[in-house]
Parts: sequence; C-alpha cells; structure tokens
Amino acid sequence: MNLTNWMNDRLPKIVDRLEHDIMNGPEAFADDGLDLAGRNEIYEILDDILAVLFPGYYSREKVARADVNFFIADKLRHISFRMGKHLRDVLNYRCRKDKDCAICNCETRAEEALADLVESLPEIRAVLLDDIKAAHEGDPAAKFFDEIILSYPCVEAIATHRIAHRLYTLGVPIIPRILSERAHSRTGIDIHPGAEIGPRFFIDHGTGVVIGETCRIGANVKIYQGVTLGAKSPLDRDGKPRAGQKRHPDIEDNVIIYANATILGGSTVIGRGAVIGGNTWITKSVPPGECVYCHDRGKNGGGGGCG
Amino acid sequence: MNLTNWMNDRLPKIVDRLEHDIMNGPEAFADDGLDLAGRNEIYEILDDILAVLFPGYYSREKVARADVNFFIADKLRHISFRMGKHLRDVLNYRCRKDKDCAICNCETRAEEALADLVESLPEIRAVLLDDIKAAHEGDPAAKFFDEIILSYPCVEAIATHRIAHRLYTLGVPIIPRILSERAHSRTGIDIHPGAEIGPRFFIDHGTGVVIGETCRIGANVKIYQGVTLGAKSPLDRDGKPRAGQKRHPDIEDNVIIYANATILGGSTVIGRGAVIGGNTWITKSVPPGECVYCHDRGKNGGGGGCG
Amino acid sequence: MNLTNWMNDRLPKIVDRLEHDIMNGPEAFADDGLDLAGRNEIYEILDDILAVLFPGYYSREKVARADVNFFIADKLRHISFRMGKHLRDVLNYRCRKDKDCAICNCETRAEEALADLVESLPEIRAVLLDDIKAAHEGDPAAKFFDEIILSYPCVEAIATHRIAHRLYTLGVPIIPRILSERAHSRTGIDIHPGAEIGPRFFIDHGTGVVIGETCRIGANVKIYQGVTLGAKSPLDRDGKPRAGQKRHPDIEDNVIIYANATILGGSTVIGRGAVIGGNTWITKSVPPGECVYCHDRGKNGGGGGCG
Repeated sequence: MNLTNWMNDRLPKIVDRLEHDIMNGPEAFADDGLDLAGRNEIYEILDDILAVLFPGYYSREKVARADVNFFIADKLRHISFRMGKHLRDVLNYRCRKDKDCAICNCETRAEEALADLVESLPEIRAVLLDDIKAAHEGDPAAKFFDEIILSYPCVEAIATHRIAHRLYTLGVPIIPRILSERAHSRTGIDIHPGAEIGPRFFIDHGTGVVIGETCRIGANVKIYQGVTLGAKSPLDRDGKPRAGQKRHPDIEDNVIIYANATILGGSTVIGRGAVIGGNTWITKSVPPGECVYCHDRGKNGGGGGCG
Repeated sequence: MNLTNWMNDRLPKIVDRLEHDIMNGPEAFADDGLDLAGRNEIYEILDDILAVLFPGYYSREKVARADVNFFIADKLRHISFRMGKHLRDVLNYRCRKDKDCAICNCETRAEEALADLVESLPEIRAVLLDDIKAAHEGDPAAKFFDEIILSYPCVEAIATHRIAHRLYTLGVPIIPRILSERAHSRTGIDIHPGAEIGPRFFIDHGTGVVIGETCRIGANVKIYQGVTLGAKSPLDRDGKPRAGQKRHPDIEDNVIIYANATILGGSTVIGRGAVIGGNTWITKSVPPGECVYCHDRGKNGGGGGCG
Repeated sequence: MNLTNWMNDRLPKIVDRLEHDIMNGPEAFADDGLDLAGRNEIYEILDDILAVLFPGYYSREKVARADVNFFIADKLRHISFRMGKHLRDVLNYRCRKDKDCAICNCETRAEEALADLVESLPEIRAVLLDDIKAAHEGDPAAKFFDEIILSYPCVEAIATHRIAHRLYTLGVPIIPRILSERAHSRTGIDIHPGAEIGPRFFIDHGTGVVIGETCRIGANVKIYQGVTLGAKSPLDRDGKPRAGQKRHPDIEDNVIIYANATILGGSTVIGRGAVIGGNTWITKSVPPGECVYCHDRGKNGGGGGCG
C-alpha cells in the first residue's frame, strides 16, 4: 500500500462516514448548545472550589495568611462566572431535549442554583471539617489534620460529593455526575450525587467503594475500601426498576462496614450501631447493634466480631 | 554535613552508578530506537481518537455542527501521522529485540496497521453506541445518552479496549498495553487488550474489574465493579502456564455478574443467561440459566437469586 | 434575583465567612510555613525520580544512550534542590506544630534526609529490577521487561512505595503519605509508607489493594487485585488502638494471595509458602505451606486449592 495515496483517497471517505454517523446518531453528538467539551472546565471549577474550601492544601499556589480573603474573593468570582455559564447551558440543553419545558425559565434557575451553591459553601466546609475529625478519630494512622487533608482520598471524594449533591437537589442535570466521576477517577470512590450522607462520614482507603443514588446514610458512619451500597432488584430480572424508586440501602447512625462488603436493596436497612464484617453479601436488613461477619470461611477465618 | 560539598563530591558518583546500572541492566533502558518516553504521546493520541468518536464530549474543544467534518479530518490526519510513527517504532524495536525478524518488513506492517485501525473506527463507533444503549437499558440511574457518554467510566474503558484490541489482533506490541493501562488508571477497569468482547457490553461503576487476556465474552453481558475474570492455574503451583494457553473464562450471552465475583480458569464457562451473585468465588463452569450466589452468609445474606 | 447585585452584596459576605472559618479552624489552613500547596510540586519531583530510575520509560522525553549520564545528573540536581526545600519545610512545620522540638535542628535533618534518599536510589533501583523480574516470572501475560515497565501499575506503585518508605524511616512527615496517595490515585494500589516489603514483590492488576502501616511482607510474595492487609482491632470496638501498635498482618516468604482476600490483624501471620484463595476473610494466622480457600461457595466454587 501507499500511505500517501491512502491519506488522500481513503481517509476522506472515513471522515465522511464518521460525520454522517455522528450527525445522525442518537444523542451521540453534543450539539452547539452544550459546551461541556472535554469536561475539563468543570474539572477546573471543581479544583477551584476545593481550593476555596482548603486554601494552601488544594490550591495550586501557596496562600499567605494576609492574602486569604483576597484569594477566596478572587476564586469565588471566577467560579461564579464560569459555573453560572455552565449551569445555564445544561439547564437550557436538557430543557430543549425534553421538549416539555417552554416555561421553565432556565436563566433564572441557573442564577438561583449558582447563588445557592456558593452560599452553601461555608456550611459544606463546616460539615467537611467534621468528616475530617471523624477520620482523625477513626484511623490510628491518621495522626494530624493536615496529613488527612493532604493525603486522604476520602476528603476529596466526600467534598466533591457534598458539592455535587447540592447541585443534584437543585435539579441541575449532567454537571453533578461529571463531578462525581471526577472524584471516582481520582480516588476510586464512586458516590452518586443523589445519595444522602449524614455528618461525620469516614471512608478509609476507599478504592472500589460504590454508593448508589437512593442511599441514605446516617451520622458517624465508617466504611472501608470495596464496600458496595447498591441495587438488588435487577437480580430478580423483572426488568428495569423505575428510576424514581428507592433502590439502595439505608445505613443508620454509628454503623461500621468493613472491606468488600456488598449490601444491596432499597428495603435493606442496616440498623443503628451494627457492624458488618468484610467480604459479606447482605440483601436483608440487619437489626440495630448486630454484628454480621463471615463465620464460615474455614478454621482460619471468622475471628472478627463485636468483641 | 555540608550540602554543597555533597552535591559536588557525592552526587556525581551516584549519577555514575545509576548510569552504569541502567546501561548494563536487562532491558531496563528503552534504547534509542524506542521513542515511547513517558508514554504521554500515546495517551494524547488516545484522547484524540476518543474525541473523533465523540466530538463535543471527549474533545477538549467545543465543536459546532458545521465544523464536525473539518474537525474529524484534522484530528484523523494528526492521529495518523503520530500513530504511524509509533507503530513503526515499536514494530521495529520488538523485531530487533527478538532477533528473529530479518524479513519482517516493519515499515509495511506499520502502515497496514495504521490504515486498518483508522478504517475500523466507524465500525468501532457503531459497536460503542450499542454498548451505550445497553448501559441506558441496564441502569435505572442512566437517564440520558449524553450523561452516559460524559460520566460513565465504562464508556472510556470499553472504547479504549476496542481500539487496543484491534491493534493487538494486528500483532502490534507494547502500544495496546499502554492504552489499556491508561484506561485502567483513569477508570479502575483493567481489560487486557487480548480479551474478546461481544456487543452490548455494560460495566456498571467498574472500579476493580479485571478481564484477562484470553477471556471471551458474548453479547449483552453486564458486569459490576470488582468482578475478576482471571487465571486459575497458578493456584496449582505447577509452574507458569505457557502464555499462548487459554487461561481465562468464557462468558456466554446475556450473563449478569454482580459485584466482586471472582471467576477463574481457562476451562470455566458461564453459560448463556446465567446470573452470578456478588462476592462469589467460581472456578468451575456454570450451566446456562443457572443462578449462583452466596447462600451461606448467615441469616442476613442470601436474599438474592433469580426470582 | 439580580446576579450582579448578588455578586456585589452577598458574595463578599460569604468570602468573609469562609476567611473567618479558615483562619480559626483546627489545622484547616496550611499556614505560611508550609508550601505544599496543591501537592503538585511533590508529584513533579516524584515523576522526576521515576524518570531517573527508568529513563526512556518514565521520562517525558526520549533519552539517547549518549545522554544518559547528563540526563541523570541534571535531574538529580533539580530533584535535590526542590526536595531539599520541601523536606526543610515539612520538618520545620511539624516541629512548630508539635511544640516539643526546640533542639531538633530541622535544617540538618532535612539535609541528611535528602542525601540519604538520593544515595539510596541505586539500591532502590536494584530492588525494583528484582520486583520486575518477579513480575516477568509470575505472570504469563508479561512477555517482556519493557512492557512490564511501561504498562504494569505495580511498577509505579512499588517504586513509589520504596521511595516513600525511605523517607518514612527517616522520620519525614507528610511527604511520604502524599507520595503514596499519588500512586494510589494513579494505580488503585494503596500502600502505607510504613509497610516493610521484601524483595521480589509482585502485585498483579492491583486495583483495590490496601497494605497497612505496620505490615511486614517477606521475599517473593505475590498478591492480586483487591487484597487487603489491614487492621482488625477496630472491629472489637474497644476504642482506637494506639498508633504505635502493630495492627496489620505479617506475610512470610513465597506466599500467594488471590483476588479480594481480606487479611486482618496485627498478630495474624501468613506462614511461608501459604496460598490464600480469593474472596477469603482471614483474621487468624495460617501455618506455613497451608492453603486456605472458600470451600463453601456451593457446587460451582471451591475448585481452587494447592494442587
């Protein structure tokens, strides 16, 4: 073959074929109204919000004490300008796709969502500090707050979740999931923006954790790497459950769930103070205070328990 | 100690020691013929291919309808130029290493591999759209195609696999594994380029998924996070199996495999329509339509099943 | 609402609230003495050290044979300059926080730590080459050294660990954990810098692996994705164990641990040559040479064993 000839003769045909498929495919082209190309600007806005919450840690630049006010003011304005634009884009885009939205007033909704998010940042930060305190108390290896903020993946994952959840409750499409997947990619922790998570939440290590859209998690809950709080119903093969339904478990206050436990189902409740051992498969509710662990792994397993 | 003295006296000795070790080590220096330094250009080419498949989503830039043809043409030429060079490099490099390749004609093979890859992109894209449709039908939380493309890690992982697999079947060394590890690092999904995967494949969440080199997966298969389709034979400790051997399981059409199931062995077949529950350890074949789940996790487990 | 008014009236109030909280919070602001902003420079130094260990692979640039000495010398000086500064910063910062350190002489400790790290690089590299040999022998899919270095996540994870562990043993705060989390984020492999790991260590695939601070791992150990070597004691709920205590298991020479096994406890010892099957939950010691696997997974499981 002659590569130059191929470039001149064949390649334009492939281009035309791809263009045709893209322009005629089902939703496979993000049209002119949606400017989320590369998702990269959403990522940058997220990094800026994290920098505002933890200047000197998550900021790319060193921030001197005297400059903190100026730094936050500058970042928040920049965040507002760019996030405002993207909120308008996605609300408008989804409206036009749904075609049931002549009177939705996207502009106003976008502005309100932006103001709500920014105004909630001090509250989100206060909750995150409690999460960090819980990490400090829950992990013997966590000796200092600064080390936790700088090196615990759960800080980034939970911070991102609390931001994404706020946008989710405001009815913002697309952006919350882009945010949660950013944290998932960087930390291995996959929390759906819809999940409701109480204060003092700690995830140790975290890789492989999955928390589904309709989970409700109480206060002071601690989970380890590989824990799934997922949907059970597809196992029944009665078809796809309706999206609005409660599909994921509830975890009450003070529960501990060890590595690689899989807890499934919308009617499953792990009661207050229960302890779920590692590598368990739980599809029914567990009463408050109970301990469930793998007691049947042969003579070398089963040594866990509640003491 | 005096750091300046150390820099002047000791550091050059360490440099010499490292240089000596590197130049005399077994393969530990990628010599002049191989220009894969940092793997970063391969990553960039991959990003460009993904942008061609999903402009406006995976592209860094917004693409207007009117510019789609121009955008694709420009990207494809740039991809061809750079990928052509790397294909030539790795084929030539591996030939020289193997020393059994005087008549291999690397130049021609590289050109043919490049043309084959680029010509197959429309077909790869069509298969990916079917994968996305399967995600849309299989996950109640997946409400829109655009959200799936923008925020489901399986899209990037499977797209990368279908590209890497094409190069693998063409006998291209090194580059397919660099591609698959790129997706692994970003998504936690580790698919060996050799695995044969049918249409309408859906991986939910995905962190911790491992799919081995000699796996064969049918149509319409759905797997969850933490699922391993791996090799069993090393457990027998009869030494290392030969690389050419079938070492990983076959998964037939319409199978569902839940979180953290571990399925091992080259003669293990999960039959058509079977359902494998979470946290299971499977080393023998499962007949078509059967359901396997952990029935022995105590009174709180075992609630799954096939309905 | 009027967004311009909101920007002028409300936003400054949120800025003041955030500034107040940050300046008065517990450790939540990295003050002027600590210049780890964004952790990005530590990441860049790590990448440079990896490039020195494997030029042409981990370097961003191609390195010709004739330039290896110059390349290493240039990188090592640049590494020394920047790492020296950060070592001084964190030692000084932690001293001031602890307030028990009037006579610690941070400057000297930083210089000594820097010299020790750089001088140990040839030795670290030699151990890493043995790790790579173990990967080559242990994985049938690993056909070439160059492919292993370029595409096996365990190479980056173990290399980073051996660097971080050196700094950990020198008493350097914060930086070792930033390094280990960098590798965790990129590979899904979470190794605490305190863990002691012998030669010829191989982690296959690796996503979800967790190795705790007080683990001791012998020579020639091979582990798979999802394996946890963690702490058990919190399960007893007697409160938080003291950080200095031995909390994680010992793994003796020649042990193999399959995917998703969870092994917990500071007094748990996996004896020389033992084989731990996948998805097991181990909280007691396993004698040398013994095989533990899930024998109770129903008729389709249990096919593993020691042969």
